[in-house]
Amino acid sequence: MLVAHGSRNQAANDEVSQLATRVAGLGQGDFDAVVPAFLEFANPDIHQGIERCAEMGASEIIVVPYFLAAGKHVTKDIPLELECARTRYPQISIETSQYLGENGAMAELIIQCSENVGWSGNPA
Amino acid sequence: MLVAHGSRNQAANDEVSQLATRVAGLGQGDFDAVVPAFLEFANPDIHQGIERCAEMGASEIIVVPYFLAAGKHVTKDIPLELECARTRYPQISIETSQYLGENGAMAELIIQCSENVGWSGNPA
Repeated sequence: MLVAHGSRNQAANDEVSQLATRVAGLGQGDFDAVVPAFLEFANPDIHQGIERCAEMGASEIIVVPYFLAAGKHVTKDIPLELECARTRYPQISIETSQYLGENGAMAELIIQCSENVGWSGNPA
Repeated sequence: MLVAHGSRNQAANDEVSQLATRVAGLGQGDFDAVVPAFLEFANPDIHQGIERCAEMGASEIIVVPYFLAAGKHVTKDIPLELECARTRYPQISIETSQYLGENGAMAELIIQCSENVGWSGNPA
């Protein structure tokens, strides 16, 4: 489950859903499905995302926080939601992975981004 | 200039500043300095970040939005701040690059993160 912040801008949420689809394609064999979920402003929320996994018969859910820094959302809000989910679904193993910003490749990625100047300011 | 959202959690802001330092080390020769700046909750803000670059004698600033999706911050708030900065510093070229979430390597990075389960829930 790819958990993003969620935006009032639906195009931004769609980006996350499309990314989840790309991850699913790229990671075939590593996992059975990739479900997006949003902390705020969009559906499915975390509760609904876990429910969707449960309906698909998941025995193990790895939650990847699609966040850049360990602010309150990563340290408090997501863990609390998952604690509730574990109570609801004791038969499912629900674990959290490294959050995105923790990944050591981030500095290299920023340099790559900086080489693509001239973004229009409009979402794709 | 690496522009992040900013958090009420100072440890999260420190992560961004440390990342800017790593980018500077990794990109030696590509640019003269990497300055972090925050849209909300932390200093330097974008105004102060640009000011810092100007004081260092910058003739060109590339702004990398350290954001995952093209929500309001990327499409409206940062461009507006930069438009103001261009008025204040007409002699400096200020351009925006691809934002982080736009980078094509993101799906691969998420898979890498998902392989590192068991994060403690506490920021480093």
